[in-house]
Amino acid sequence: MRPVAILGIGQTKIDEQWDKSLRQIAAEAIHLALMDAGRERADGLFLGNMMSGILDRQNLLAPLAADFAGLKDIESVKIDAACGSGGAALRAGLMAVACGELESALVMGVEKMTDRHPHEVTAALATAADADYEGEMGLSFVGLNALLMRRYMHEYGWKHADFAPFAVTAHANAMHNPFARLHQKITAEDFEKSAMIATPINLLDASPIGDGAAALYLVPAETLRRGTRILVAGSASATDTLAIHDRPDPLFLSAAYRSAQEACRQAGVGPEDIDLFELHDAFTIMSALSLEACGFAERGQGVRLGLEGEILPTGRVPVTTRGGLKARGHPVGATGVYQIVEVVQQLRGECGPTQVPEARIGMAQNIGGSGSTIVTHILKRD
Amino acid sequence: MRPVAILGIGQTKIDEQWDKSLRQIAAEAIHLALMDAGRERADGLFLGNMMSGILDRQNLLAPLAADFAGLKDIESVKIDAACGSGGAALRAGLMAVACGELESALVMGVEKMTDRHPHEVTAALATAADADYEGEMGLSFVGLNALLMRRYMHEYGWKHADFAPFAVTAHANAMHNPFARLHQKITAEDFEKSAMIATPINLLDASPIGDGAAALYLVPAETLRRGTRILVAGSASATDTLAIHDRPDPLFLSAAYRSAQEACRQAGVGPEDIDLFELHDAFTIMSALSLEACGFAERGQGVRLGLEGEILPTGRVPVTTRGGLKARGHPVGATGVYQIVEVVQQLRGECGPTQVPEARIGMAQNIGGSGSTIVTHILKRD
Repeated sequence: MRPVAILGIGQTKIDEQWDKSLRQIAAEAIHLALMDAGRERADGLFLGNMMSGILDRQNLLAPLAADFAGLKDIESVKIDAACGSGGAALRAGLMAVACGELESALVMGVEKMTDRHPHEVTAALATAADADYEGEMGLSFVGLNALLMRRYMHEYGWKHADFAPFAVTAHANAMHNPFARLHQKITAEDFEKSAMIATPINLLDASPIGDGAAALYLVPAETLRRGTRILVAGSASATDTLAIHDRPDPLFLSAAYRSAQEACRQAGVGPEDIDLFELHDAFTIMSALSLEACGFAERGQGVRLGLEGEILPTGRVPVTTRGGLKARGHPVGATGVYQIVEVVQQLRGECGPTQVPEARIGMAQNIGGSGSTIVTHILKRD
Repeated sequence: MRPVAILGIGQTKIDEQWDKSLRQIAAEAIHLALMDAGRERADGLFLGNMMSGILDRQNLLAPLAADFAGLKDIESVKIDAACGSGGAALRAGLMAVACGELESALVMGVEKMTDRHPHEVTAALATAADADYEGEMGLSFVGLNALLMRRYMHEYGWKHADFAPFAVTAHANAMHNPFARLHQKITAEDFEKSAMIATPINLLDASPIGDGAAALYLVPAETLRRGTRILVAGSASATDTLAIHDRPDPLFLSAAYRSAQEACRQAGVGPEDIDLFELHDAFTIMSALSLEACGFAERGQGVRLGLEGEILPTGRVPVTTRGGLKARGHPVGATGVYQIVEVVQQLRGECGPTQVPEARIGMAQNIGGSGSTIVTHILKRD
């Protein structure tokens, strides 16, 4: 298996893009990644998407995007792991280049969510839960995360306000990311005062949906000069039960633990070596659980990293450095690719006021469902 | 890239399985493939499915199937190329094992289509067309294929009755396949007399949908003894436009041509070496177009192979030897895996009255949409 590097990145602003179609957004990200890579074509396109079939009545999105972007005839396929689709698409493209089947691959995520009524979108998102045992009960994703957050607060004695730093930091970082959905500074007081959605989750615990696409251009690492390459040094995916009631310990993201362990093993690094961590903060509770499962904090102590300022760009474990799901936005099937784009920006030193000093190793973790598919990648400047 | 072999196969009967849930059907196929392979686990699961999100409100089908089958914690991902999902899933699993990332992989396709009203299913199938230019016009898949068939008859002067052998042969072969949806012999007269659906396509031109799942167990070829191994000798996927009006020649399946050429190149064989061809006969017109694009017949002459008996198990190009989409049935996202299972059965010599004598090299071609994603595999006993 030959090492693979990320040569180009592209992303569209996450927004309500009512004047652009799904295929236009997708093609825009593809063109930006091609331009960034200095290439005109790729041998394949691996596209992550969750809900175009439901919301847009459009399947076969991969050949549609390839064709609309002018990439006639190339292999293309859609990878679907719900909100974890982006990470899963990277993993598929990675293996295709690593095994020598392709000499280059575009990996992208795209989602268009704001053309429909929010009720339709909420119902579509709920398809990532267990339809027979969770969906049938009327549980939405906010509801599922509210159950987890309440249990966490009960188990470990934290107050709701203790989660504020995750949201405040994400919003502060997004101020410097032109592609972010929200450019709005918030305070811990705003966080506590925001509207309740599903106790104890309020509006500022939750990430906004949006329309957006992001893309990567992969090549064999051997074709690039050493020193400035961005290598995919670790890649792993693991599975957990769909329904959270089936888990021995619902507060332990076992697929996060296992995929992070394996990605670290491949990259030959430990949590202490990671310069930044783009985690999947769909809700503030998920930030705490991810930090713990990946070894950055003891069980029940993930919240403390926020309270102690360790998640800031200058802290011990910088997270959501470009705004995270919380403020950059969460176009579900595209999110995992946005995370990788942002880690690449950090390793290239392109992040201005939220640049992590001397970032060389970055981790990204993309979560599908309530943790039932978790994909972890480690990138290394080398 | 190391060679990969198919060690185990499993399939459920294609039917209206109203007493079984999606996850039950999926787990059944997984268990059958594991038993056939003599294994208890696999390192990963690559699942092809098209419409569980739309029809069953269930996404994240891969971890759900893995969990329900007792395969805790393994990597799992869903691959979606509409009706071509099964072939695309095999290609993804193949690359994961070929590159050394996994030591074994389950590949499966699953679809549950009969729990909903046929109108819902027809609309869901239409998501594989171009939503903005074809779906918006009210074109269903029968409609699209009717356009192609009418054009073909006009261009090359064939009558509707000339397509009968494709349907008659498929039904005759399915009589000997216990997993087939239809066990009903038909004659050329039945074919001509059956109800019109969309001129010139009538009921017996079209394949039936159904509930079903099929699975494969992949291992590195080097772990098996030579002589009886079933190798995946060629694998390729190619893309065409989604909308048929965008094609320079709508009667030429260019993605079939390109993927077949590439798969043959990898396997070191030509059309003359192929002992059987499991093609994607969603409609009789597709059989003719596939045979032509893959080099088994001149342009406009695919129909002749049927009329001259060359598609029978004893003919020059046996097709649909276990019933094909037409009579085995077409559970869309699972179909591509059924095709591979059937080629394996032929290469193992397990097909009784429809056994192709001394079959050693088999081809399977799985089509997504009206030919916008086409995946071709060549298997070889070696």
